[in-house]
Amino acid sequence: MTPLGPGEPRTETSDPLLLTPGPLTTSRSVKEAMLHDWGSRDANFLAINRRVLAALPRIVGGAEDYVAVPMQGSGTFAIEAMLTTFVPPAGHVLVLVNGAYGSRARRILEIAGRRLTVHETPEDTPPDLAAVSHLLRDRPDITHVFAVHCETTSGILNPIADLAAIVSAHRCRLLVDAMSSFGALPLDAAALGLDAVAASSNKCLEGVPGLAFVVCRREALAAARGNATTLVLDLHDQWQAMERTGQFRFTPPIHVIVAFHQALEEFHAEGSVAGRGARYRENARILVDGMRALGFRTLLPDALQAPIIVTFHMPKAPGFVFQRFYDGLKERGFIIYPGKLTVADSFRIGCIGRLYPNDMRAAITAVREVLADMGLAVPLPLAA
Amino acid sequence: MTPLGPGEPRTETSDPLLLTPGPLTTSRSVKEAMLHDWGSRDANFLAINRRVLAALPRIVGGAEDYVAVPMQGSGTFAIEAMLTTFVPPAGHVLVLVNGAYGSRARRILEIAGRRLTVHETPEDTPPDLAAVSHLLRDRPDITHVFAVHCETTSGILNPIADLAAIVSAHRCRLLVDAMSSFGALPLDAAALGLDAVAASSNKCLEGVPGLAFVVCRREALAAARGNATTLVLDLHDQWQAMERTGQFRFTPPIHVIVAFHQALEEFHAEGSVAGRGARYRENARILVDGMRALGFRTLLPDALQAPIIVTFHMPKAPGFVFQRFYDGLKERGFIIYPGKLTVADSFRIGCIGRLYPNDMRAAITAVREVLADMGLAVPLPLAA
Repeated sequence: MTPLGPGEPRTETSDPLLLTPGPLTTSRSVKEAMLHDWGSRDANFLAINRRVLAALPRIVGGAEDYVAVPMQGSGTFAIEAMLTTFVPPAGHVLVLVNGAYGSRARRILEIAGRRLTVHETPEDTPPDLAAVSHLLRDRPDITHVFAVHCETTSGILNPIADLAAIVSAHRCRLLVDAMSSFGALPLDAAALGLDAVAASSNKCLEGVPGLAFVVCRREALAAARGNATTLVLDLHDQWQAMERTGQFRFTPPIHVIVAFHQALEEFHAEGSVAGRGARYRENARILVDGMRALGFRTLLPDALQAPIIVTFHMPKAPGFVFQRFYDGLKERGFIIYPGKLTVADSFRIGCIGRLYPNDMRAAITAVREVLADMGLAVPLPLAA
Repeated sequence: MTPLGPGEPRTETSDPLLLTPGPLTTSRSVKEAMLHDWGSRDANFLAINRRVLAALPRIVGGAEDYVAVPMQGSGTFAIEAMLTTFVPPAGHVLVLVNGAYGSRARRILEIAGRRLTVHETPEDTPPDLAAVSHLLRDRPDITHVFAVHCETTSGILNPIADLAAIVSAHRCRLLVDAMSSFGALPLDAAALGLDAVAASSNKCLEGVPGLAFVVCRREALAAARGNATTLVLDLHDQWQAMERTGQFRFTPPIHVIVAFHQALEEFHAEGSVAGRGARYRENARILVDGMRALGFRTLLPDALQAPIIVTFHMPKAPGFVFQRFYDGLKERGFIIYPGKLTVADSFRIGCIGRLYPNDMRAAITAVREVLADMGLAVPLPLAA
């Protein structure tokens, strides 16, 4: 694990740093892995692909009973594939919503014509565990529960372990969107008995975007045969084809996969989940401490905050104009993200991707400069 | 348009050349475009994406009435998106099959529960135009016809213009899989009245794989609202979101798109369809002439052969072992492809991607050397 501190490097790029929910800043070496062409049946490529797929279940404690099934496209492609492959047409899903990604899963299930029940809480509030338990007790026809591990909408960490215990107690199956936590926050799919965990190449694993995947409990995936109502999103079919031939059914995004392979090498060199998570926690700590010192307030209390992306209330100080703030940071090489919340006027700053603590310190310095340019004294008034 | 001939460069790569149906060899500069990270809301990236999408309809004569809708994933993702977006649940599709890609469209429609009728011909035989006409006359409830422009299975060129005339005469709509022809073979969607043309970044446009797209007649796409039964494959929804926001609905494969932009610049610099097609025709001519001189026979007569990929009969000469042939060519830097045919034992050699006539001459030299290594005299006996 790399030591953290002032001696730590800054990211080696002339591009603006992406302090966003993704796409993210990746290492130079990850991008350089894309400077070659491979055939999709090429033995070297197939070996790379096998190593990538073998590594993914291990990251969530699933070395034995789980298999990773790749899905071309963005994370949402994997979410739709997971929901429509695992939930049979006669299934009934309890969808836990506290942000845009829970809502999106609801929409996917509505379009796919699956029966669903929604438990929704505000974007700064985790699901109500007692309410979930009552719902599962009162509706014994519910077969699956869908939950988001870290809801990127606010950055909130949802209580997956507690949920998994409740879901198991009611003999239901849990499907998890771990898009923005996979590889940085510990998650033990086997211990929690999860049926499926969806994620992508481009979040905490620091590859480039274009490949998503679902880590599937092998037995549950085998039982899902025939559920899917599309060809391309059928995880069972992709799994079976890959078992038979070692190949994708349809042209894989070769360059993205080879970059992902390099990203996984760097992930393991950093100490896997422990090391990656430590860097992100340090990034988040520097960000939150630095922003609070300048008078910004986080949406979430620290206990609910994942070290992935932090939502800040929009300052009410007269003279603070978000577009000038955004542009000033961009000029200084930092891209941040507007909020996507309904509960509060806000903006977000991400802590993940190939960003080091020194990058976060530099970001705080840039924030201070931009506030000065806007004529705002720091700390901003706390009432704001 | 670049002059063709012995002065022409060879491809600048140390990787084996991919003489396959794809993924293909791309230029160094296309790959180098991926050495940066962009945010998905970044103004520079959005401008690049707009230029990419604006360029695509023009390539098939659709500057006025057509719009390109991007789809993350491989070409099959675009085919499934096209079929399930354009064909309403109560529609009825006549699927023209003479290879694996026609069969795949049939499977997509079966899984999606769309009514379909199949007109199938052998892999070396175009659809029977009179039979198609009779089918459309006898089954007036057929709403759409699906055809493959160049069937990569054999390399056969299907008669899209003739089919379009028949389909129009019966007031049906034509949906075209132009995956392996788009950008190299002339196709005028507007003149032929096509509703949709699906293709990808990684065939004749010489980008890297990971993005597909459908060029859609705007009026037909508008009428397709609500047809889709998935979220991610809904072209109407993606189109509407892009009109509203200029952005993808879900994280785009940024690096793939920026590489595609560079590939389109190089496509236009080469003289667009005329220039790109001329290079591929010259590549195909050198390949076919060279292989015939060595005693190989093409599956297709020249009149049916598209200059995209050429299927050769497996020689029956004693001593010819395909795996040795394949490995010998690979050692010399050329990757070819086994056949995928039911009508004949065969193999395939592609002519597309960043391959120059001199690369094809070098490939023929390599074939000659490998035959010599296998102890075979050339020309191979014609009876073989």
